[in-house]
Amino acid sequence: MAEAIVLIGCKGQTQEAEYLDVLATAMPEERIVPFRLMEQAERDATQVAIVANPDPAEVAALPNLVWVQSLWAGVERLVSAFDRPLPIVRLVDREMARTMAEAVLAWTYYLQRDMPAYARQQRAGLWRPHPYRKPADTTVGLLGLGALGIAAAERLLGAGFRVTGWSRSPKSVPGIEALHGMEALPTMLGRCDILVCLVPLTPDTRGLVNAERLAALKPGASLINFARGPIVATADLIAALDSGHLAHAVLDVFEVEPLPAESPLWSHPGVTVLPHISGPTDMPSAAGTVADNLRVYRRTGQPPQGIDTARGY
Amino acid sequence: MAEAIVLIGCKGQTQEAEYLDVLATAMPEERIVPFRLMEQAERDATQVAIVANPDPAEVAALPNLVWVQSLWAGVERLVSAFDRPLPIVRLVDREMARTMAEAVLAWTYYLQRDMPAYARQQRAGLWRPHPYRKPADTTVGLLGLGALGIAAAERLLGAGFRVTGWSRSPKSVPGIEALHGMEALPTMLGRCDILVCLVPLTPDTRGLVNAERLAALKPGASLINFARGPIVATADLIAALDSGHLAHAVLDVFEVEPLPAESPLWSHPGVTVLPHISGPTDMPSAAGTVADNLRVYRRTGQPPQGIDTARGY
Repeated sequence: MAEAIVLIGCKGQTQEAEYLDVLATAMPEERIVPFRLMEQAERDATQVAIVANPDPAEVAALPNLVWVQSLWAGVERLVSAFDRPLPIVRLVDREMARTMAEAVLAWTYYLQRDMPAYARQQRAGLWRPHPYRKPADTTVGLLGLGALGIAAAERLLGAGFRVTGWSRSPKSVPGIEALHGMEALPTMLGRCDILVCLVPLTPDTRGLVNAERLAALKPGASLINFARGPIVATADLIAALDSGHLAHAVLDVFEVEPLPAESPLWSHPGVTVLPHISGPTDMPSAAGTVADNLRVYRRTGQPPQGIDTARGY
Repeated sequence: MAEAIVLIGCKGQTQEAEYLDVLATAMPEERIVPFRLMEQAERDATQVAIVANPDPAEVAALPNLVWVQSLWAGVERLVSAFDRPLPIVRLVDREMARTMAEAVLAWTYYLQRDMPAYARQQRAGLWRPHPYRKPADTTVGLLGLGALGIAAAERLLGAGFRVTGWSRSPKSVPGIEALHGMEALPTMLGRCDILVCLVPLTPDTRGLVNAERLAALKPGASLINFARGPIVATADLIAALDSGHLAHAVLDVFEVEPLPAESPLWSHPGVTVLPHISGPTDMPSAAGTVADNLRVYRRTGQPPQGIDTARGY
């Protein structure tokens, strides 16, 4: 029998029990044991970890890991939690891409159809229709053209929006204008009525959406951040909203989560605060993806393609 | 030269000028004159009226009208404004159907993705994710399967929602369960997570969504009214929200518009008030549809198919 797979970093025993149940259903041939229930001999034998938000001390107690499977698409915390180079495999899951693309369209409609303005007007008892803007006259810019960005582009195009995208390296996505590289970023930003952040958090993207980048957006543009909090410079964002250059920001991610009570974002009239719900992991779907990865590993002895830890994704 | 077409019922001279401009572009061969600029001899000769919200006194001063073209899909006010039987042609316009279907999807996402709950939580400084509900597990019920209902069904199906529909007479719409007749209404209502009103206002649909019909919805269901205010019994709606049976109502139409300041709907936490913006008439597109109707009339002498004034649509 193969050595056990370790499950580490669950948030409490209820989540742990739920994850174990779904993972066992997807791969009954594997024995998956939570870190806390393993003896040290078993920890020493463990080659593969399935991880949520692991404690670096737990990682350090697994000396013979060969590779690590994340349950999320964003792995920036994992990169720093590991004390040695090791393939870290992001969750690239169809259902997560579908859910995230749906969130991008849902909150794009929220902005295009003026829902924040109508909510403010309702609180003031004000009946005032705003001119309708067609999707064909509205450009949505996707910052990041990975699996999530491409799924979002397809969904937005299907709804009739004009879509432009930007990525670090060249990408080709049917139906959209895809720009790449830092020198092309101001061009892309200048076309956006709505900018959607879907880039991974890396040293290069930390603070990417700062005062200079926000100033490059069309006057009256809006921002959606569904990626990671530190990609957007909060003070610069608030200044751009207060000046009127930016109309609205939908934020699902923050530098510290839950968003601290003292954050000015909670009560800013130009900000919609969401509690990190845009692209939840669908555990049954994710467990199927993880099971597929493990079966290839058992058959070939080769770990799946991990992230480029130098790039951070 | 053919007699002039009269334009009646515009809201002010700015709107009148805009409509005249767009109509003239779409049909340069016709002479279109506002009612107020016509002499009585010209009024007597007029066979066709293009109407927004006409004053019955103006209608009475056009004794030889043959047919009437509405600029809107809802014509219940026209039926009572005319003092004689006359073909009344509703606007059945692709762009209006597209815009309305988009509004149905946009506010369906608003409800499915818990935007009202997150807005309340933000005002309370509360970080609390709600479980994600997939479109495939969410049934949207369309009350009305005319051009607007069918366009909405297609858009919802494309987004992965389960769709059921109800109409007075039998309809067949690909991909949805279509029920018809009053006896089938409770069955349809019992399946709805979200009920969307898209029926015309007629003597049969006035007060259709009353306490009994609201009670037939699934507990925790929500309502979207994009049709006409009097279709929903306001007091019954508020009672259903207060009891918790109904989770939320998105209302774009009201018995009196603008919604009066004293209405309890403005401040009800379970109600989203919109100022009649779900399916605006796109004048360039509408003018093209009206021009097509007029050309057929000039060629054949036959007015287009009017509404059934007994049914009211």
